[in-house]
Amino acid sequence: MTDLAALTTAVRQFAHERDWEQFQDPKSLVLALTGEVGEVAELLQWVRAEEVVERFSTPERRARIGDELADVLLYLVRLADVLGVDLGAAGEAKLARNHERFPVAGDDSVVGVAPHKA
Amino acid sequence: MTDLAALTTAVRQFAHERDWEQFQDPKSLVLALTGEVGEVAELLQWVRAEEVVERFSTPERRARIGDELADVLLYLVRLADVLGVDLGAAGEAKLARNHERFPVAGDDSVVGVAPHKA
Amino acid sequence: MTDLAALTTAVRQFAHERDWEQFQDPKSLVLALTGEVGEVAELLQWVRAEEVVERFSTPERRARIGDELADVLLYLVRLADVLGVDLGAAGEAKLARNHERFPVAGDDSVVGVAPHKA
Amino acid sequence: MTDLAALTTAVRQFAHERDWEQFQDPKSLVLALTGEVGEVAELLQWVRAEEVVERFSTPERRARIGDELADVLLYLVRLADVLGVDLGAAGEAKLARNHERFPVAGDDSVVGVAPHKA
Repeated sequence: MTDLAALTTAVRQFAHERDWEQFQDPKSLVLALTGEVGEVAELLQWVRAEEVVERFSTPERRARIGDELADVLLYLVRLADVLGVDLGAAGEAKLARNHERFPVAGDDSVVGVAPHKA
Repeated sequence: MTDLAALTTAVRQFAHERDWEQFQDPKSLVLALTGEVGEVAELLQWVRAEEVVERFSTPERRARIGDELADVLLYLVRLADVLGVDLGAAGEAKLARNHERFPVAGDDSVVGVAPHKA
Repeated sequence: MTDLAALTTAVRQFAHERDWEQFQDPKSLVLALTGEVGEVAELLQWVRAEEVVERFSTPERRARIGDELADVLLYLVRLADVLGVDLGAAGEAKLARNHERFPVAGDDSVVGVAPHKA
Repeated sequence: MTDLAALTTAVRQFAHERDWEQFQDPKSLVLALTGEVGEVAELLQWVRAEEVVERFSTPERRARIGDELADVLLYLVRLADVLGVDLGAAGEAKLARNHERFPVAGDDSVVGVAPHKA
């Protein structure tokens, strides 16, 4: 069980103890988030799509990519906190809205249909 | 209180009900994550660093950026799930390791010092 | 024929005429670059890897993704200019170095072998 | 003088000689692009906005960030090529269109006004 609110408090305190709030303005945190997403991308960019899950199923590789996903999470949590956003509530609200936007029955059912943009 | 494990299950079920697992391989999910981080970046790219927090403090703008941060969270949660990574545990483990890497006392104290890469 | 130096001058003048240099500091430009890469990602995230090239081979879709790639290029050119980097020279130098790093003959030949990171 | 078309040919040949076309589908290349933009972001994320240009004005640091910008350029050039997009033409066309979208005179003049999204 990992509560996002508790994690938010822990990450906030981590920054505070190091006097790092001065560096962690939202733009800098989005850059940090970009950097970490980039590291995730680099880990799997040249692996064939259908082989990624198996490739990262060894303990070492799973820990490696888990480590990068953790960095993304920590910066995301910190960014939301600095912006005064309740990340957990926002995530739950968005998922609820997605349930309405993408119905599973009826004429506009999206079952098996990807929402392409172009 | 938002438990990451419960959110993971909810997002997994959302994908399953729509038969979207077929589209959500890890590479596609990293691209989706990139897209959502890009939307966050676009919201604040031209705002002066010292004005971002105030600018996004109105209910409408906070909801707007919260909505984008929620998208990042949902794809991150889904990506970790598809890769078999326990995101909450990974986040907590990384934060614990960061406490060791960046000490707040002693000769290598990082208090007030940003970890520049260049 | 598109000369990167000429394009750099044109983009610089475009910013100058609009008095936009004040917004185009490097960090803001990297955020803009992130936003545009994100838009490219969104266009193809749910398309199967082996179907992307065909999907974007119609004139409309090719123009659509070309438009997003153009945005990436323009911000990249501007970012390099603001940082005093000769982008064309840097690109050519990097390509030359890559020729040395990734030999096509001998024991360390990389022919047909992707440089995986994990 | 660096011609984008000539650079495109050189990068294509580089991939061909190494038999790397098999890895360089568009989705993989967007991930690679994301990775390189992430490396640029990491270089300047904790530097104060008004100090970035000076910080990267030393020969070593300029070369360092120029090297990362070069990686972004090379993957962008390759991605456009794989998609059949004439990147230079697309960039010039977009810049021409931007001249129309953002007029410098009249009631809708954008001089000194950043195009905020929220």
